[in-house]
Amino acid sequence: MEQLQLAVIGGDGIGPEVTGEARKVLRAALAGAVDLVETEFALGAAHYLETGEILPEDTMAEIATHDAILLGAVGGDPTDPRLAGGIIERGLLLKLRFAFDHYVNLRPTVVHPAVESPLREPGDVDFVVVREGTEGPYVGNGGSIRVGTPHEIANETSVNTAYGVERVVRFAFELAETRSKRVTLVHKTNVLVNAGGLWRRITDAVAADHPDVSVDYLHVDAATIFLVDRPSRFDVIVTDNLFGDILTDLAGAIAGGIGLAASGNINPDGTFPSMFEPVHGSAPDIAGTGTADPTAAILSAALLAEHQGYADAARRIRDAVDQDVASRPASTTTSATGDRIAALVAAA
Amino acid sequence: MEQLQLAVIGGDGIGPEVTGEARKVLRAALAGAVDLVETEFALGAAHYLETGEILPEDTMAEIATHDAILLGAVGGDPTDPRLAGGIIERGLLLKLRFAFDHYVNLRPTVVHPAVESPLREPGDVDFVVVREGTEGPYVGNGGSIRVGTPHEIANETSVNTAYGVERVVRFAFELAETRSKRVTLVHKTNVLVNAGGLWRRITDAVAADHPDVSVDYLHVDAATIFLVDRPSRFDVIVTDNLFGDILTDLAGAIAGGIGLAASGNINPDGTFPSMFEPVHGSAPDIAGTGTADPTAAILSAALLAEHQGYADAARRIRDAVDQDVASRPASTTTSATGDRIAALVAAA
Ligand SMILES: CC(C)[C@H](C(=O)O)[C@@H](O)C(=O)O
Ligand SMILES: CC(C)[C@H](C(=O)O)[C@@H](O)C(=O)O
Repeated sequence: MEQLQLAVIGGDGIGPEVTGEARKVLRAALAGAVDLVETEFALGAAHYLETGEILPEDTMAEIATHDAILLGAVGGDPTDPRLAGGIIERGLLLKLRFAFDHYVNLRPTVVHPAVESPLREPGDVDFVVVREGTEGPYVGNGGSIRVGTPHEIANETSVNTAYGVERVVRFAFELAETRSKRVTLVHKTNVLVNAGGLWRRITDAVAADHPDVSVDYLHVDAATIFLVDRPSRFDVIVTDNLFGDILTDLAGAIAGGIGLAASGNINPDGTFPSMFEPVHGSAPDIAGTGTADPTAAILSAALLAEHQGYADAARRIRDAVDQDVASRPASTTTSATGDRIAALVAAA
Repeated sequence: MEQLQLAVIGGDGIGPEVTGEARKVLRAALAGAVDLVETEFALGAAHYLETGEILPEDTMAEIATHDAILLGAVGGDPTDPRLAGGIIERGLLLKLRFAFDHYVNLRPTVVHPAVESPLREPGDVDFVVVREGTEGPYVGNGGSIRVGTPHEIANETSVNTAYGVERVVRFAFELAETRSKRVTLVHKTNVLVNAGGLWRRITDAVAADHPDVSVDYLHVDAATIFLVDRPSRFDVIVTDNLFGDILTDLAGAIAGGIGLAASGNINPDGTFPSMFEPVHGSAPDIAGTGTADPTAAILSAALLAEHQGYADAARRIRDAVDQDVASRPASTTTSATGDRIAALVAAA
């Protein structure tokens, strides 16, 4: 039987709890078809505070030998000074995204009929944000001088390349070809004229290769208005790393909460393993209570299965989630939700 | 009688239409108390396309001699290549904000009981975003090399200074003292560590001078979730130029549309005239139809009156807007709305 080598980084807080359920469901979905080999990696804020290690080179090399990565959430108590400055987020999560060239950060948003959106009339919402994952303001090319004095200057540099923008824009258009054939570029071309000009010109050039895909452009500020007023207008949104970060949390909120928002950090070339993770964080406040909703992690496992070529398993996971969400008991637990969905998957 | 020298930049599209109504209302509110002297400046995209002028130095010097500026909206057809790269936005609007050191961009959000929010349960929403206006990614310190080639690199630099951050954070805390005494700093300290660290340390330092004001921190992505899920939690949000741009359009949307969102670009030191403008744009698609809602411009005039020390006039404008919004006919026009509100102000 074919093997699927899965690296699991449960991480912090509710991370290991929700990936536990996602693994349960993935096992049920792949049973009989694939030999799923799971290797756990102890990484995250807690691990760092215990060992002083964030992501050693040899650990990263070992993770790189896997077919895919399932990640829960990383990050500890935000007020802990030992974790200040996003040391875990940057040293672990962003490091993996950059080192494994996850240039597509794929974040689908669907308003499920059984889930109440905070919007009065969400309409028929089904879009995907294609967020660039390896450039923009996330490159860490900033610096400060005279820190702590009244003369401190702190700079952040957003770096954007034709190479980096073109590949993610091409991915977005190819994705749109399989969907409703509409791409919306989101940027801030009237202020960030250098980066914006590059994104705009490349989008125009790629659009010329996809005459059947319609294209429009929104400034990021206007995009937030449309996400609230008429989210059904979107099909594929392509945008930079930071704007994508902001828009996908907003998208998760309008879809009824980020307890349902899945994501894939994809290396489409297949040179490195892709990494799948819920959009939500480690939620240390509810860790250990058994109340975390594992649905976003389970849907991330569906993205993983699909990306690895197990489209049928992915479909069965999604159908099971749909069914469960529609009939979910008012009061449930993390593991009970995983059990119900795994059982539905197994029965399908 | 005291004089108030007002510079009016109607601008493009619906800009002159809505400032026309705002001036009507301002005249009614100040009648008998102040001698309002209005000087119109023809500036904007249309003016630029006609004359090649964006904002000549002598025009700027003349505007600087006024007590305050009322601006409608600037910007033409976004697909016109002659206007690409935000040439008008940057050469006119941002130039005024930077040259007149409008370091506080004040954007209040209130969900009016008579206005339907797109949110199912907006709750009691009444907050102010204090957006930094002279730094951050808006400084124009970017650049590109190898433009138009596959090797193009486009950089944008966000510049943040202790001087610039401290003055706007102090303003936010002082404002919070007059309100519900809660300040939320919004940034992205886990990724933009240099700028984020500066904002965070300065906020902590200023907070120490305001022990009665409670402070919290949200990443910008998480802030969008709260704006949708529980906007009533906010009192004063202080944030950087770009995050403030994004959050205030979102705030306008949740408050029932940016037809109501007013703003002030304030130079608190009084060295330069402050500038008041609706958050919305020039909406070329509805210009000339008489359907533009002048309320945001009228509320911007109320901010102007308040800032110039005419608190009573400001209160009367706001009360008149509240009354009008609560009883507004289903079908009305730009000028009829201005007339009704001016009449209410005059009668008060
Ligand atoms: C944790 C943080 C660095 C991360 C990001 O900003 O990308 C998160 O918000 C996300 O969206 O995955
Ligand atoms: C027109 C544009 C440059 C401007 C900005 O980004 O500040 C606008 O969106 C605003 O919010 O006033």
